[in-house]
Amino acid sequence: MIIVVKPGSTQEQVQEILDQLDAHGLKAHVSEGSERMIIGVIGDKSLLSLDALEVLPAVEKLVPIMESYKLASKAFRPQGTSFEIKDVTIGGKELVMMAGPCAVESEEQVETVAAQVRACGARFLRGGAYKPRTSPYAFQGLEKEGLQILRRVADRHGLLVISEITSENDIAFAADYVDMIQIGARNAQNFRLLSAVGKSGIPVLLKRGIAETIDEWLGSAEYVMSEGNYKIALCERGIRTFETATRSTLDLSAIPVLKSKTHLPVIVDPSHAAGKALYVPALSRAAIAAGADGLIIEVHPNPKLALSDAAQQLTPEGYRILTDEIRAMCPILGRTYPQ
Amino acid sequence: MIIVVKPGSTQEQVQEILDQLDAHGLKAHVSEGSERMIIGVIGDKSLLSLDALEVLPAVEKLVPIMESYKLASKAFRPQGTSFEIKDVTIGGKELVMMAGPCAVESEEQVETVAAQVRACGARFLRGGAYKPRTSPYAFQGLEKEGLQILRRVADRHGLLVISEITSENDIAFAADYVDMIQIGARNAQNFRLLSAVGKSGIPVLLKRGIAETIDEWLGSAEYVMSEGNYKIALCERGIRTFETATRSTLDLSAIPVLKSKTHLPVIVDPSHAAGKALYVPALSRAAIAAGADGLIIEVHPNPKLALSDAAQQLTPEGYRILTDEIRAMCPILGRTYPQ
Amino acid sequence: MIIVVKPGSTQEQVQEILDQLDAHGLKAHVSEGSERMIIGVIGDKSLLSLDALEVLPAVEKLVPIMESYKLASKAFRPQGTSFEIKDVTIGGKELVMMAGPCAVESEEQVETVAAQVRACGARFLRGGAYKPRTSPYAFQGLEKEGLQILRRVADRHGLLVISEITSENDIAFAADYVDMIQIGARNAQNFRLLSAVGKSGIPVLLKRGIAETIDEWLGSAEYVMSEGNYKIALCERGIRTFETATRSTLDLSAIPVLKSKTHLPVIVDPSHAAGKALYVPALSRAAIAAGADGLIIEVHPNPKLALSDAAQQLTPEGYRILTDEIRAMCPILGRTYPQ
Amino acid sequence: MIIVVKPGSTQEQVQEILDQLDAHGLKAHVSEGSERMIIGVIGDKSLLSLDALEVLPAVEKLVPIMESYKLASKAFRPQGTSFEIKDVTIGGKELVMMAGPCAVESEEQVETVAAQVRACGARFLRGGAYKPRTSPYAFQGLEKEGLQILRRVADRHGLLVISEITSENDIAFAADYVDMIQIGARNAQNFRLLSAVGKSGIPVLLKRGIAETIDEWLGSAEYVMSEGNYKIALCERGIRTFETATRSTLDLSAIPVLKSKTHLPVIVDPSHAAGKALYVPALSRAAIAAGADGLIIEVHPNPKLALSDAAQQLTPEGYRILTDEIRAMCPILGRTYPQ
Repeated sequence: MIIVVKPGSTQEQVQEILDQLDAHGLKAHVSEGSERMIIGVIGDKSLLSLDALEVLPAVEKLVPIMESYKLASKAFRPQGTSFEIKDVTIGGKELVMMAGPCAVESEEQVETVAAQVRACGARFLRGGAYKPRTSPYAFQGLEKEGLQILRRVADRHGLLVISEITSENDIAFAADYVDMIQIGARNAQNFRLLSAVGKSGIPVLLKRGIAETIDEWLGSAEYVMSEGNYKIALCERGIRTFETATRSTLDLSAIPVLKSKTHLPVIVDPSHAAGKALYVPALSRAAIAAGADGLIIEVHPNPKLALSDAAQQLTPEGYRILTDEIRAMCPILGRTYPQ
Repeated sequence: MIIVVKPGSTQEQVQEILDQLDAHGLKAHVSEGSERMIIGVIGDKSLLSLDALEVLPAVEKLVPIMESYKLASKAFRPQGTSFEIKDVTIGGKELVMMAGPCAVESEEQVETVAAQVRACGARFLRGGAYKPRTSPYAFQGLEKEGLQILRRVADRHGLLVISEITSENDIAFAADYVDMIQIGARNAQNFRLLSAVGKSGIPVLLKRGIAETIDEWLGSAEYVMSEGNYKIALCERGIRTFETATRSTLDLSAIPVLKSKTHLPVIVDPSHAAGKALYVPALSRAAIAAGADGLIIEVHPNPKLALSDAAQQLTPEGYRILTDEIRAMCPILGRTYPQ
Repeated sequence: MIIVVKPGSTQEQVQEILDQLDAHGLKAHVSEGSERMIIGVIGDKSLLSLDALEVLPAVEKLVPIMESYKLASKAFRPQGTSFEIKDVTIGGKELVMMAGPCAVESEEQVETVAAQVRACGARFLRGGAYKPRTSPYAFQGLEKEGLQILRRVADRHGLLVISEITSENDIAFAADYVDMIQIGARNAQNFRLLSAVGKSGIPVLLKRGIAETIDEWLGSAEYVMSEGNYKIALCERGIRTFETATRSTLDLSAIPVLKSKTHLPVIVDPSHAAGKALYVPALSRAAIAAGADGLIIEVHPNPKLALSDAAQQLTPEGYRILTDEIRAMCPILGRTYPQ
Repeated sequence: MIIVVKPGSTQEQVQEILDQLDAHGLKAHVSEGSERMIIGVIGDKSLLSLDALEVLPAVEKLVPIMESYKLASKAFRPQGTSFEIKDVTIGGKELVMMAGPCAVESEEQVETVAAQVRACGARFLRGGAYKPRTSPYAFQGLEKEGLQILRRVADRHGLLVISEITSENDIAFAADYVDMIQIGARNAQNFRLLSAVGKSGIPVLLKRGIAETIDEWLGSAEYVMSEGNYKIALCERGIRTFETATRSTLDLSAIPVLKSKTHLPVIVDPSHAAGKALYVPALSRAAIAAGADGLIIEVHPNPKLALSDAAQQLTPEGYRILTDEIRAMCPILGRTYPQ
């Protein structure tokens, strides 16, 4: 960390800063520029409350130099992380495809989609059982029953189950039914939940918060990892901006940024970001071209919709067309596509 | 809700929309403009999944007309809400002043501030016991002990206690120590926690999520209210924008907007929004001038800091100067200031 | 500026940085922390293209320490700027009130408002003659005729004229009719226009760009000032955020931030930010309470509207009520209100 | 447009709305829902000032149904636009590659890059001659001389010239040197400049404003087109968000959105968005995979840099590697890559 000293500060005021650092076992490295004095801080900053520094009269600003995460940082595992869940590797050369309905509504519904997406290379069945909804009056999901449906259907098709958990109190139950827990955007900084899934040891797909910076997101990942659970992948799902043409703005720059900052695998969710199936194929191809390790996509099973323009509606047929394109791109990008 | 029909849609495609509405017991009101056909939807939309409509080929867009919250809407209580916590009224003519340290560090620290802010009209003692921190390695608060300190100190000074709770599992314990639970920005859409504090019946100060629209915020309030807990006040604490001169951008427009959309009282937290004590007095005056029902302000007890520019550092002395200004503004604004 | 060196850089790569600095006459101050090497750069950085540094392999990031503006910075005139336009002082103890219709439509329309706002203390008549509109088919203003109407009406009422100019080619004409040129949000970084109004010497009200940081805004002001025109006031008019309840989010934090960073006067435009007259009174009071030096407000002259709720519609009667409140607040804030 | 009527409005207040519409030759289509009355407005809304409606007491909100642009809308040319500049087609099956240095510094510098990028399929030479800089003290470009250098070098290599113009007064000069005028993000809503380039008939690359919605961007394009200049391509270059890991957030969702809303070709500028060459290859591939019609990329000619990691630094060698990847992707995406 660097402290920029306010011009015109008295020697006593500067000393006050140095004393504060000293009191916390930190070393200071003072450097006088032509227009500003700068103090480099050396040592373990976690011992120090930044607030205690910011209120000092001679402090103009504090400039962090290091990230606040360690286990999640690239330096921790420069070669990158890959991990297995049953027979699927996340973060390897082979892409990971996750697909399924937005919400689990019935066993029949899930069954239909499962067969179709499995045939297109999907290895994870997704589906919302606990649905965080903006309104308490909207459908909140089938909850436990939803997880059980997912498990049964997935087992029939050789799929793994990924589903969102919204409370630490549901982890124990979920452990019997899911292969990977999804932490949703709204709980991205629910640190108690993050610590709890960390302790559970169950693999985690950590969605980015809707207004979370990449550094904060890695801080969230650190909460999981600091409990000893290193089976974690990050999921870019769009950030909130002023643009309303899409539900969120999918930040595909996050992929190369993450690849340079962390060793964790990166999955992209184009469905929630776009909010419109029409935009999903373009964004899916873009995500893979940008280096994503996989995709989590919503597929609508409504057979009636298959009658309308398939590619646009991302019906099972739309998903098939999209995955064919992605399969074709794999060799150029040094990737393989799952069977 | 209004459905805008895509130009060039066939009659069958339009019929598909009408069938979908009919299947959910909704009535349609078709209106043909010179360039677009529009379908007004009449009835209880909560029965309908919007996704099921959006995927239909003839749907260009859905335009919501009504808000998704009811108990939180102005129409529910046009006269406004005020409620009592012990001898303090929130949402009345008298402003509610909440003050205290950022984090509870020790009983001595809290004791010092408590006496000082009480003398300036504060009726609530604030202080973080459970601290949601971006990094797992940062100080996470004294937790249970922190709540106990707050209670003891508050009781000695005739203050009420407000403190943040970050997990539904802590509510039972907190119930014995706090008079009002604060839900922080990071948990603003932790719906499980919101429902749980709703069920607890303990008064709630609901902070706005860092990227929560006002309508979503009222949706969060609805989660608390739909459990029967109407003792809720909203707390504007800044939203995330591109501007980095302040930690967040305090959205004071939210005050008149809320006053027109909801009956709930509005408290403003200028400290977290600004991130710099230097800006707190101006923002505090502005919040009250804009119609806020109260303020929650961080006061640093460090006696050493009192030596530096008091007004800027928001030491106890800075708080005194600020509250004197606000007291003077009250008569002009039709308010009273607490003793 | 500080250069953070990438960990693991070779000595040659670091030398490459030092050579680059040396080649531009800059001195380097190397400091080795426990985890990062940092290079402080001393000297005139305007000689150096930052891009040339950023591409060097050992550069992790560049951290600016100083602002890029000089004449606009607080240090240039710590006592603050005030300047006269005819008999009105901008930036003094007395508030400056600017008011008038959104667009100049006819002499009668402007005449009606002028008399009314003058009676409420307004000293500037505002009104759009050149209207930057999102669509080329929307009303673009009366242009030259609009300026002439403003001048004639203003002269009859002892008012000064402020109006927006959107092209450097219109300045010569405008010089005969306006007392202050407004640069709108859309031209906030039209540097050619800024330089041109700088050269003209005509006082300038510089609105903040819709996504301009405060530092960039002061950079825009510097364009005007570096041409020798120091008669400039800044106008906060709302920034673009994700929130749609208001047209823009009025950033009132900008007032104390500007007061700490620059000596230039600060005017607030609550009308454009809010987009709804209903919210204007609350935001106007808040702006003054936060320390603004004046307000520019749209007043609708439609006499028919005066029949409806005056305070909400900001009819002339609404303006009168609002200005009465602000007049009453002045003594508490150490201000005077104009006659 | 739809007018949502405030609940509780009197019949006279509703009549006021209907009268206002009638006075502007617009027809109203009233529809009463269970909770709100809605008025559909039929006819040419450009005759009506929305402000005049918004102030009416019975108006709750106005909901636009149609876009405000016509020539730029997809419906105007459903088959898409492609146009020729000399022997290059923009918007065709073949990708358009534009490349060159950020700023024109000298003829030698440009010469070096030109040969290299031409060999990689670039058909346009880019380079800044008029540089809009945040600070007036930063290098503002070689201006006229810069354009002349670009022309001479481009002619030697069979390249076309694209360069930014920042004032309507420079168009006449530029017409002799450039094949396509770039309008930069800061002038994206400088409507006077847009009209002027529209009148000039010179092909235009219109960058998106840093906080411009897609609809506003198409409104900017409409300014050019309404002057009869249909040779216009749109350039996504990143929008301003809260994320600071990249200079802007490249909004690749804008590609499919634009493809559904407009017939204009879409070019992507990953260099300015990312702000770091390291991220350019991933974003370039992603843009093409999402359906962009071309790329405008900055290539650094510094031969010294070629010694460092080429792919990361986007030296000419980095550009070659990137364009090889894109060439390989073309067949899968139904594209051809230029010779």
